[in-house]
Amino acid sequence: MNFTQPIPTLRRDGHAVVILDQTRLPHRVETCRLETLQAACDAIAHMRVRGAPLIGGTAAYGVALALRESTDDAWLAQALQRLSATRPTAVNLHWALGRMRERLTPLPAAERLAAAWAEAEAIQQEDADTCARIGEHGLALLRARHADATRPLRIMTHCNAGWLATLGAGTALAPVYAAQALGLPLMVWVSETRPRNQGLLTAWELREAGVAHALVADNAAAVLMASGEVDMVITGADRIAANGDTANKVGTCLKALAAVDRGIPFYIAAPRSTVDFDCPNGEAIPIEARSADELLEIDGLDVHGQPARLRLAPADTRVANPAFDVTPARLISGIITEFGVLAPDALHTLRHAAAPR
Amino acid sequence: MNFTQPIPTLRRDGHAVVILDQTRLPHRVETCRLETLQAACDAIAHMRVRGAPLIGGTAAYGVALALRESTDDAWLAQALQRLSATRPTAVNLHWALGRMRERLTPLPAAERLAAAWAEAEAIQQEDADTCARIGEHGLALLRARHADATRPLRIMTHCNAGWLATLGAGTALAPVYAAQALGLPLMVWVSETRPRNQGLLTAWELREAGVAHALVADNAAAVLMASGEVDMVITGADRIAANGDTANKVGTCLKALAAVDRGIPFYIAAPRSTVDFDCPNGEAIPIEARSADELLEIDGLDVHGQPARLRLAPADTRVANPAFDVTPARLISGIITEFGVLAPDALHTLRHAAAPR
Repeated sequence: MNFTQPIPTLRRDGHAVVILDQTRLPHRVETCRLETLQAACDAIAHMRVRGAPLIGGTAAYGVALALRESTDDAWLAQALQRLSATRPTAVNLHWALGRMRERLTPLPAAERLAAAWAEAEAIQQEDADTCARIGEHGLALLRARHADATRPLRIMTHCNAGWLATLGAGTALAPVYAAQALGLPLMVWVSETRPRNQGLLTAWELREAGVAHALVADNAAAVLMASGEVDMVITGADRIAANGDTANKVGTCLKALAAVDRGIPFYIAAPRSTVDFDCPNGEAIPIEARSADELLEIDGLDVHGQPARLRLAPADTRVANPAFDVTPARLISGIITEFGVLAPDALHTLRHAAAPR
Repeated sequence: MNFTQPIPTLRRDGHAVVILDQTRLPHRVETCRLETLQAACDAIAHMRVRGAPLIGGTAAYGVALALRESTDDAWLAQALQRLSATRPTAVNLHWALGRMRERLTPLPAAERLAAAWAEAEAIQQEDADTCARIGEHGLALLRARHADATRPLRIMTHCNAGWLATLGAGTALAPVYAAQALGLPLMVWVSETRPRNQGLLTAWELREAGVAHALVADNAAAVLMASGEVDMVITGADRIAANGDTANKVGTCLKALAAVDRGIPFYIAAPRSTVDFDCPNGEAIPIEARSADELLEIDGLDVHGQPARLRLAPADTRVANPAFDVTPARLISGIITEFGVLAPDALHTLRHAAAPR
């Protein structure tokens, strides 16, 4: 299953890396050219790239950019440390940097730069492959669900877990793009995803990919399901516990509850690297509390089409802003991975599995 | 239980009516003086007053304002018709205007103006009484739930069903204000309530009334409940079917699902006038689809503190915007009315009940 990103989230261009600047989306399509370690660090820290797989890939290329300046041990260590500090809680970031360290440290300094580029490219290709395999496994579910061929399959998602968040087709949206490529008629319900409105990114990326979709308030999930307008739900995951309990963007669990109440299948799509086998269950997953400003202020375009920020409520309003929730495994129909679709209580079988193919 | 609105939503001032202009909240506290039928119609149509009971009361006073110009039959009929057309789907509006028509039509023209003011004042007082009784009945539930006296009772609500929406203490929030008056320690989780953000009005009115509260994204309901931070949920209602199925602001059903999943009581608070005894169940309640702009644009204050509007997504983004959802009776712990707290399947007992007291 070949998926070509309509606009690459990241591509190597000679001795530089060009990224799509996601802080300007959905209003402006702009790219940034990264030529230094500092530029790579800034791009991650300022969320010009976002989505766990894309952050990991950008960090890997950041090591290559760093080694253009020097390839000695001290500088390599510093580069790894500075990249690691950009988003301290991102799992993929640390995984990618650990892999770069293991690959580069044993090498003579003179061989490190070429090896860094090659390893970053390998990580990029592997992420694209993982997305493609998630897409294939999810596609089988979509085809099975598409029993009524007289109307499009209607899939609800939450947050952004599409091509924008990865170096390939995405996770939750990979099955959608696989189905689109085969001409299966479908449409996607895109949840706004307050408070950071990542649903607006999802609407944008689906438009760029030519997939039918409609934006809805997060609050609309239950009424759409009750009126028979949702055939299945697929979201990504930030961290999956060993028992299948899944942490994802706040609001995911509400969709799972509504889906189960109406007999609608609810799936998680994520690579095995998202499973934390050392975490026994959802209660052990810490929930990040984020800034009150995410609820009290909002960004958009003013009447002149210029980026602007509005205040929605007084700055001293007391706010609680948990960024994630945990969907209990009992609500999850299956977890779509690069290995296949697993029942949540069968995840443990992946612990020591070799990579597919 | 006496509750005095911190700022009156509506008050008679001689031959005029002064309303709190809710289109300026939560940023500005401004009042409007209504002296004519046209001013009353505009105030309702432009949502300077909102909330079903408050709309009904404003319409009643609008009839009195109209009769200042003329008290003949033709003008009375025209006034009733014009007020009725301001918000065609509001149940209380039509109820209040029907009551004014019945009271005024049989009277000689010379007696109508005084009778109109008196009838509007009676409607206002009755709404305040109804709110007070809802508050008393709900208070008993709060006290019973407040088993753990070492910490405040934490109540989640949705949308705005407080004093701002009525001529008294509110519906969903009336029990909160009753508990506050007795010194019961409590706090309110205020859902943002996308897409129109009426939760910001709720945060404002709770602040004005001195009640502890915190604003949260609608998406945060499940994680707050899972972590034991919600003791009960109370929302208002827009229309209750005879079997207890309840239409309310979109997103209400998601909170009910999350509450039931965690064993947290979920209550509806509404006057009997919200029950549509001719509507057998929730499937018979039509769901209003509102404008896409509610999701694509947003109002707030710019960096200079001036009212401004931002665009969040392209104007041609496809949107679905159902304004309400239906919470099935099976998810509702009880319906708090001016007659008492009823099980949803016992609502029919109110059909022919006389008004309390």
